[in-house]
Amino acid sequence: MMSKIIDGKVVAKKVLAECGQEIESLKAAGVTPGLAVVLVGNDPASMVYVASKVRKCAELGLHSRKIELPEDATHQEVLDVVLALNADTSIHGILVQSPPPPQIDEGAIVRAIDPAKDVDGFHPENVAKLALEDASGFVPCTPAGCMRLLKDAGVETSGAEAVVIGRSMIVGKPMALLLMSKEGNATVTVAHSRTKDLAAVCRRADIIVAAIGMPGFVTADMVKEGAAVIDVGINRVEDSSAKRGYRLVGDVAYDEVAPKCSAITPVPGGVGPMTIAMLISNTIKAAKQSHE
Amino acid sequence: MMSKIIDGKVVAKKVLAECGQEIESLKAAGVTPGLAVVLVGNDPASMVYVASKVRKCAELGLHSRKIELPEDATHQEVLDVVLALNADTSIHGILVQSPPPPQIDEGAIVRAIDPAKDVDGFHPENVAKLALEDASGFVPCTPAGCMRLLKDAGVETSGAEAVVIGRSMIVGKPMALLLMSKEGNATVTVAHSRTKDLAAVCRRADIIVAAIGMPGFVTADMVKEGAAVIDVGINRVEDSSAKRGYRLVGDVAYDEVAPKCSAITPVPGGVGPMTIAMLISNTIKAAKQSHE
Repeated sequence: MMSKIIDGKVVAKKVLAECGQEIESLKAAGVTPGLAVVLVGNDPASMVYVASKVRKCAELGLHSRKIELPEDATHQEVLDVVLALNADTSIHGILVQSPPPPQIDEGAIVRAIDPAKDVDGFHPENVAKLALEDASGFVPCTPAGCMRLLKDAGVETSGAEAVVIGRSMIVGKPMALLLMSKEGNATVTVAHSRTKDLAAVCRRADIIVAAIGMPGFVTADMVKEGAAVIDVGINRVEDSSAKRGYRLVGDVAYDEVAPKCSAITPVPGGVGPMTIAMLISNTIKAAKQSHE
Repeated sequence: MMSKIIDGKVVAKKVLAECGQEIESLKAAGVTPGLAVVLVGNDPASMVYVASKVRKCAELGLHSRKIELPEDATHQEVLDVVLALNADTSIHGILVQSPPPPQIDEGAIVRAIDPAKDVDGFHPENVAKLALEDASGFVPCTPAGCMRLLKDAGVETSGAEAVVIGRSMIVGKPMALLLMSKEGNATVTVAHSRTKDLAAVCRRADIIVAAIGMPGFVTADMVKEGAAVIDVGINRVEDSSAKRGYRLVGDVAYDEVAPKCSAITPVPGGVGPMTIAMLISNTIKAAKQSHE
């Protein structure tokens, strides 16, 4: 079967173009959406992520602020930064890059963010809104990006059997809640490490969302002919032939799975590029809602 | 196959006996757990429910308060009652009987209840705690009762395939979240009105939880031999031979399904009696947590 490769870069560009138009209208109305990104410490991966978020804001004409705190910042110092940003009317979205150093209670920091500025969608109030299907909340960026990829690829979720592999609050559970909502209307199964015959469970699926963080976990025998496969995994595997000594692979054994699929996301270039796009989209939503 | 009939009255009595012991210890420590039940209007079914909740509190030596407001009470009046109960240290649990008359914004009332006193488990903060597997929250009484019935009947959820029929926030979604949690460890599918081949989906299940509100919806052909079946439905069907002109039936066609099951809850006498027991249990938990 000819499988459609879902190009996350193209869809992300489309989302960002929509965002660009909204930014123009907001600016015309005197509002410049603002995103604050808080980085504690100097984890190299986090530094790269934060830099790319700030760069994307600049490209789009969004106001952004990067706040860097040293590796040994106290919990109170981080909290104070968040509280100041909550009070700052030029800032509509606040993101504290994960993971912070161990002396920071990340859960407490997330709960301290004003839910109306919680563009990551991890505050309990937004978690509840997702479960309650209250559209005023913020949906976590990665599952929101997956839904958008499915939509853009023309994959019908209504009535489909969807299997989500993984039950984290970052991806698995919100993804399941989105798919089973009145908007998604899929019949959703959440599979995980304790699932007995995971291959058989996956073979039932019209849509598979893999979010387990294990390279090449989903193999061809686990995929029904014609299924759509969304690969959330981004795993580093050693590769001496690669410039950096490693390469990025997903949770899906792409080469063997792709030929069976109706549609599939590659890694990299699938779900990855969507995350920043959905973050920008959430920031615009926050700016809009703050001026309603 | 000999199916085990899960007697909800027996399990509820056991839960209440455990509660009785906890009430004694709390009283010895100078704390009498208190439950406030707010009833707006005079819906006959609501009046019966409220009366039985208050009666159960009295039986167990719990402090309870029934607050009755007239059918034409304003939203603000109900809100004021809730706010006063939030501030009342003799009250640990607050329940506003559902459904209130239409002039009351039920969602706003639920959000006004102090989450630490929300023994119904419907406040967004408790919804989020359930999703986040934070054990300090309150789990809605009906799904909590279903979990307890499964446990007491010796039904292993870990690794089991569970199908929840219905996706409401009162039963379906919290039930799914409990079953898929680290404690439940089941592979959970949420099926609903848009599910394509619901019979086939149900036949996969080791555990079926039916919560759709349609009398006799789950028929024998939908149940795998040896499955455990929890019937949350309580539907009135006309029956001229019954004293009241109707009888109560579940969402499961009991007579034809029971012979195929390893275990099944009857209606009435299955899930029903558990609801009050879990409400009392939640009230005790609230009283304990308030004095920690």
